Amino acid sequence: MDGNALKSWLEIPGNSDFTIHNLPYGIFRSRDRTPRAGVAIGDYVLDLALLAKEGLLKGPGMDAAVFSDRYLNNFMALGKPVWQAVRHRIGELLTEGNTELKAYKEEALVPRDSVEMLMPVHVGNYTDFYSSEEHATNVGKMFRGPENALMPNWKHLPVAYHGRASSIVVSGTDIIRPKGQTKAPDAPAPSFGPSKRMDFELEVAFVIGKSTQMGERISTDEAEDHIFGFVLFNDWSARDIQAWEYQPLGPFLGKNFASSISPWVVPLEALEPFRIPGRAQYPEVLPYLKYKGHHSFDIPLEVAITPDNGEETVVCRSNFKNLYWNICQQLAHHTVNGCNLEVGDMMASGTISGQAPDSFGSLLELSWGGKNAVKLKDGSERRFLEDNDSVIMRGGAEKGGIRIGFGEVRGKLLPAN
Amino acid sequence: MDGNALKSWLEIPGNSDFTIHNLPYGIFRSRDRTPRAGVAIGDYVLDLALLAKEGLLKGPGMDAAVFSDRYLNNFMALGKPVWQAVRHRIGELLTEGNTELKAYKEEALVPRDSVEMLMPVHVGNYTDFYSSEEHATNVGKMFRGPENALMPNWKHLPVAYHGRASSIVVSGTDIIRPKGQTKAPDAPAPSFGPSKRMDFELEVAFVIGKSTQMGERISTDEAEDHIFGFVLFNDWSARDIQAWEYQPLGPFLGKNFASSISPWVVPLEALEPFRIPGRAQYPEVLPYLKYKGHHSFDIPLEVAITPDNGEETVVCRSNFKNLYWNICQQLAHHTVNGCNLEVGDMMASGTISGQAPDSFGSLLELSWGGKNAVKLKDGSERRFLEDNDSVIMRGGAEKGGIRIGFGEVRGKLLPAN
Repeated sequence: MDGNALKSWLEIPGNSDFTIHNLPYGIFRSRDRTPRAGVAIGDYVLDLALLAKEGLLKGPGMDAAVFSDRYLNNFMALGKPVWQAVRHRIGELLTEGNTELKAYKEEALVPRDSVEMLMPVHVGNYTDFYSSEEHATNVGKMFRGPENALMPNWKHLPVAYHGRASSIVVSGTDIIRPKGQTKAPDAPAPSFGPSKRMDFELEVAFVIGKSTQMGERISTDEAEDHIFGFVLFNDWSARDIQAWEYQPLGPFLGKNFASSISPWVVPLEALEPFRIPGRAQYPEVLPYLKYKGHHSFDIPLEVAITPDNGEETVVCRSNFKNLYWNICQQLAHHTVNGCNLEVGDMMASGTISGQAPDSFGSLLELSWGGKNAVKLKDGSERRFLEDNDSVIMRGGAEKGGIRIGFGEVRGKLLPAN
Repeated sequence: MDGNALKSWLEIPGNSDFTIHNLPYGIFRSRDRTPRAGVAIGDYVLDLALLAKEGLLKGPGMDAAVFSDRYLNNFMALGKPVWQAVRHRIGELLTEGNTELKAYKEEALVPRDSVEMLMPVHVGNYTDFYSSEEHATNVGKMFRGPENALMPNWKHLPVAYHGRASSIVVSGTDIIRPKGQTKAPDAPAPSFGPSKRMDFELEVAFVIGKSTQMGERISTDEAEDHIFGFVLFNDWSARDIQAWEYQPLGPFLGKNFASSISPWVVPLEALEPFRIPGRAQYPEVLPYLKYKGHHSFDIPLEVAITPDNGEETVVCRSNFKNLYWNICQQLAHHTVNGCNLEVGDMMASGTISGQAPDSFGSLLELSWGGKNAVKLKDGSERRFLEDNDSVIMRGGAEKGGIRIGFGEVRGKLLPAN
């Protein structure tokens, strides 16, 4: 570690995603205790409900009761100054030399492998963007042919659609293969049955921490004040259902059966060391989409598949920086018509594909519509997911001795019921 | 009135939507009282919180506290047997000869013109169907040309998409004209400004009263057990924003700035007298979309426009029966992939257009994309909505002396901010 890295009195494994620079929030349940808020640190969860009860998290605007809630929403609604103060205070409590937790250590630090993680936020509305040029181009080529791959609007606005909030589940939740209508291009009529083209989509989502009223616009300058933090997001997709249903109003049953998120919400502040300039954007965007500063992040991401009782194979290595539209542009666009946001809303990036063929963030792209086999370590091949495959997504970055990570989002695809 | 019609000891105006056969639920606030549940009856609101407190709504499965909630969700979650028992009991209390309300009459019956109506349900997720063949055909012709008007999937499945739940507002809420990107077909690049093609969409929405788990399917036979009741729904649309943004993922900013609903949720039971057979469906639908019985409803609907300080003109006369897909098919389709539903979810029909040109449920269709003028009584013309226009939708039916109605959903379009 170099001079920038803080040290904790708690032993944190060298490869841990959850260093003192990260401090992500989640909702956990241990033994017979009720759900409560915690922060991941090394191999432990720091129990914020207990800390608040013991008076260790006092401060202006604080409401100690929020850490005993089922969701983080009421904590987020306290506002950015409180998020900053709590984050600063937790860092202080964990920093080498601080002894304030000594008396509570056994109780306040719960082994992470002993707890159950729950959905961290109540998602009011979920929006899915489509902000990777490579993904949009790849899918466009396959669904509509190379001449219509990227729609004329794509480089003028961050295309997005509303998804289903009720079926967003936390990592570890099993996913059931959906049934639905599909139609092969040469079939005379659609047929019904389990999807044969099950896929993942590698995305990163951010969580809204500050609401707006109807008619209110968020500028690109203000956007980051509305963003609480980030999770990994697997937008499970049934490609055959999607292809038949999606015109003219967009994806519906091909997507809304499930999406999975990682349980730890990584604060925007934790990503600061990884800010980088965004991609050049041509043609020039309209004034409301222009921005100052750096709002892209250099965070490597990967996707692995583990067959039932099998070995894990990483099938995709991408990066959060592979997005054409940044988070500030996404929020400015979402609210430019006066659409109101609520604390807990989730904004997913869309599949994050890069230019290299092994950086494509979905099997649809990796297998190029099922044409090419993706080889797994056990010798088997995938064009789409098979029953009992687990999909694992991870993300994390290191720079100047500072390491942070998202942990993982994991889900197993069960056979159709 | 004929022999089927019940009589109340309360005087109910002959043209009232809110007869003893209707008994719709809403959330109201009067003077300095907190919001609470009520039932519309004639010119009054029956205060259910007060009735429950006085022990007049007891019964198996009942929780009197639900009527003091801010939303109807917890009442709905008690389940259909409770809805039926409460409805039966309220009818009993209001029927000629019953004297149980005598002691509370002044307090329990609040004049409707003295109360403020609030959003009746907390909408978790909002789905918009696209179930009128005439509407889909009309819009398809204008957006994609006559050869692609009705997509190949349209007669095989009830097309739908997810909309924005946070911007659904109750009747009477002002709507601000949205700004956004638009692009004329011959323009080299998009431009930014207030929408110039503001429109309404005449819809009816139903409210989910019984939730499902992920992986659970609702058959067409079971569907009505999940439906609590109905409201009128104005899906405000910015056609120029929609046309530029909607491909390939569907409508977003062209719709999500606002939708308006009528404040009174009309129970499914109240619509029983108006059931009629559905339209013939060719080609034959897949087995999961087949249904028994009658699930369409003969309920005339109308849309009026009132210019600022002007006279009202009815511009559209349609009917709820003008839908190709019925409510049971919509729910069976929505859940056939295992998508879970939650109490309070709202399912809108899509614009309800008939075959007659004056039955088209949007200005886009009435003016045929702005080509034809819609004449108002004050001599002015509309192709799309003008600033300070109010849009009023109404619906109601009468049969065998039994009359029920939805009341109205009203909204005024304010200039862009």
